[in-house]
Amino acid sequence: MNGRDVICAIASPRGKGAVAIIRVSGPGCILLSDSLFESSSGMKLVHARPNHLYHGRIYAAQELLDEVLLSVFHAPHSFTGEESVEIYCHGSSYIQQQILQLLISVGCRLARPGEFTERAFLDGKMDLSQAEAVADLIASTSASTHRMALNQMRGGFSAELLRLRSQLLNLTSLLELELDFSEEDVSFADRQELMSIAVETEKLISGLCRSFSLGNVLKNGVPVAITGTTNVGKSTLLNALLREDKAIVSDLEGTTRDVIEDVITLNDIDFRFIDTAGIRHTTDSLEQMGIERTFKQISQARIVLLMVDANKGTDSFQDYYRQIKSHLPEDAVLFIVLNKVDLVAQPEKLIVQIRKQVTDEPVLSISAKSGLLMQQLQDQLVAAINTDYSSHGDVIVSNLRHYEALTRARHALLLAMEGLRSNISSEFVSQDIRECLHYLGEITGEITTDEILENIFSKFCIGK
Amino acid sequence: MNGRDVICAIASPRGKGAVAIIRVSGPGCILLSDSLFESSSGMKLVHARPNHLYHGRIYAAQELLDEVLLSVFHAPHSFTGEESVEIYCHGSSYIQQQILQLLISVGCRLARPGEFTERAFLDGKMDLSQAEAVADLIASTSASTHRMALNQMRGGFSAELLRLRSQLLNLTSLLELELDFSEEDVSFADRQELMSIAVETEKLISGLCRSFSLGNVLKNGVPVAITGTTNVGKSTLLNALLREDKAIVSDLEGTTRDVIEDVITLNDIDFRFIDTAGIRHTTDSLEQMGIERTFKQISQARIVLLMVDANKGTDSFQDYYRQIKSHLPEDAVLFIVLNKVDLVAQPEKLIVQIRKQVTDEPVLSISAKSGLLMQQLQDQLVAAINTDYSSHGDVIVSNLRHYEALTRARHALLLAMEGLRSNISSEFVSQDIRECLHYLGEITGEITTDEILENIFSKFCIGK
Repeated sequence: MNGRDVICAIASPRGKGAVAIIRVSGPGCILLSDSLFESSSGMKLVHARPNHLYHGRIYAAQELLDEVLLSVFHAPHSFTGEESVEIYCHGSSYIQQQILQLLISVGCRLARPGEFTERAFLDGKMDLSQAEAVADLIASTSASTHRMALNQMRGGFSAELLRLRSQLLNLTSLLELELDFSEEDVSFADRQELMSIAVETEKLISGLCRSFSLGNVLKNGVPVAITGTTNVGKSTLLNALLREDKAIVSDLEGTTRDVIEDVITLNDIDFRFIDTAGIRHTTDSLEQMGIERTFKQISQARIVLLMVDANKGTDSFQDYYRQIKSHLPEDAVLFIVLNKVDLVAQPEKLIVQIRKQVTDEPVLSISAKSGLLMQQLQDQLVAAINTDYSSHGDVIVSNLRHYEALTRARHALLLAMEGLRSNISSEFVSQDIRECLHYLGEITGEITTDEILENIFSKFCIGK
Repeated sequence: MNGRDVICAIASPRGKGAVAIIRVSGPGCILLSDSLFESSSGMKLVHARPNHLYHGRIYAAQELLDEVLLSVFHAPHSFTGEESVEIYCHGSSYIQQQILQLLISVGCRLARPGEFTERAFLDGKMDLSQAEAVADLIASTSASTHRMALNQMRGGFSAELLRLRSQLLNLTSLLELELDFSEEDVSFADRQELMSIAVETEKLISGLCRSFSLGNVLKNGVPVAITGTTNVGKSTLLNALLREDKAIVSDLEGTTRDVIEDVITLNDIDFRFIDTAGIRHTTDSLEQMGIERTFKQISQARIVLLMVDANKGTDSFQDYYRQIKSHLPEDAVLFIVLNKVDLVAQPEKLIVQIRKQVTDEPVLSISAKSGLLMQQLQDQLVAAINTDYSSHGDVIVSNLRHYEALTRARHALLLAMEGLRSNISSEFVSQDIRECLHYLGEITGEITTDEILENIFSKFCIGK
């Protein structure tokens, strides 16, 4: 805390509104704010009850600037953990700017991006992964991203890591104890037991690594590639799904749709629908490029919808299906969607024919145009993600930095396991485990460098 | 208050930020909010101390939505005058939207634009002109518009109107007393005295009407027409002034510059600089149209800068000056600006020559390119507006609705004065004064209709 200065910034969203919030934090900030604020009761801020809203006026050069509400927070009972002040002023950009200028004129400094959260981390109010979750929480636009961020902010991820670290610390200290007594050739650590702890830990870490693939798609929208021949009804399907999008967009920012990719929110999960070009045998080089692009889109998808026109039968289905399967990523789901079922006499027959040709992919029949059975398709899309979600428990890694650290930690742990297996010196095994611990510590911030901190917090907005 | 429902809206600016504010107002809103909020101390909101920030959690369908601060306000000690609740949540658009949805699910209604302020008006927390000032205050982007709005919000305008109305009410009640005793032919009202009160009132009202011209330009930026021959240095002048623009624009919204008209803020007053085409004798019809446009711009300006190139002498000055003078509006100021004075040997001689040819306009010599004497020009621009400002006292009308009502009130008062002069029946004089009172009452809201209210508050944003 020593040597910290007082920082200030607008904490509410940019722009004008009825009310704006200006946040001030740092030792002495209450006394400092008192020089600007004249409370309606004549009370000085040093006597203010914490967490209470006081009405008063702010003057700039003897002239009234605004009537505001103001609240003080005593250390450590504030967001940053420091002595803090929050000013609730009228939300004109002029007033917000003037109050900041006044604060600066009495000795505050404009906060750097993320500096409030950084101080909260430095004061031990939260660990690094929780601090990062604050930014994710603010950026979240759907239930799934919100849930991941909130869970991480509340320490779900941190608790898991803490458990892993303590297991590994146990392991390595036993090994290191052996080293201290190396001349006496004693063995404190049962290698068998060590190995089983390492295996369990590796399983947990690789589970977290795998969850990143889901966390990442939830954060950026689940990529759904729609494929099928021309006129199979891809646009009609998209429009039908679009009508189901229950998100209240109103005038909130951040909910603008990406019209190129059609982001549709179903049951609070963002799906990014990508309309691909069809696939067929061709010698035309331009068309061939289109097909290459389709394969690439399929290889990046989480869900692939293979649409079949019920009107046209299933003649070329097998070929089409095989090509898609060969490009399907491991963690992706494929749905066969038989469209225009209202236009054929016995769609059941077609469904049976298709079922015979596929491995175990679900076959859905719909009529995108009439809306028939669209709810069923929607439920399947949502279920595919929710099943995936449940399989990971509550902890989903959605942050690239965490993913990288976990990957490195896992690599070090695998080396340690290899060492245990080949019965090499405890010294080397212990070194690998220490490395694993280091990477896990980087995530929560037990191990940190100025560079890591700057890299993390510079991505925040000012005021956070 | 009876039959009012509970309204809710986001009060902070739209978009995402560290913190957002959601405002809830109406009878029973505390109990209603309690059903969403779980305070960290387990306290129920009905027991909450007003104006205190309570930490707690908001759940949606058993799932944690956010950790928030919440404050309750008891009637009439709130912005609206009603029982109110304010929720300070994390500023993600998702969270803001979800909390609104939760509030709606327990019986709140999304507030209409301006509805909080409308309720404050209906509950007598402020009169109509003060309520309108809230919107102006929030929209204000410079010291001058901010000062006008704040003054109006704090009742400066209302106090003036109250005084006028009470004078007129006095006048009319004396006249109406005479009517009651009309058969006895007594005279309670000294016509001479009535007349002097009417004259004084008319003077005040027309002063307010006149102030609208200033109020309007301050609100929209003071129009400054820059005129002069090609290459006289108009762009150089604009660029030099632009450098003096001390406004911190940073990333605050609403401070974007109008690049077409060059809005430059000098000493916290917005000036709209309009670069006009030159004026010269021509038979070319296209060029003639340009000149007509210049005249029109001059006729709409508050300040006109006639730039003269010191290098080229003052040969055609007289003609130019006369043409501008003939198009100059009554309340506009003309400055002669002799540019490039650093390029001539004896600029004083030129100044003397120009001074001889003008009535009493200030003649300034500058070098826009080198910045010479630019401060002097800037001071003159600011002084021109500030002098104007001071002449109106503290009360400047900036609202078109008020201006129209004042104009109508003045018209009715002039009719009453005419009646007094021609000694017509007190009945007619009284009727005109009643009409005048009606229009003055419309401004502060003593006289109001649903139509007026809707018209006013629908222009507000939601959340105000």
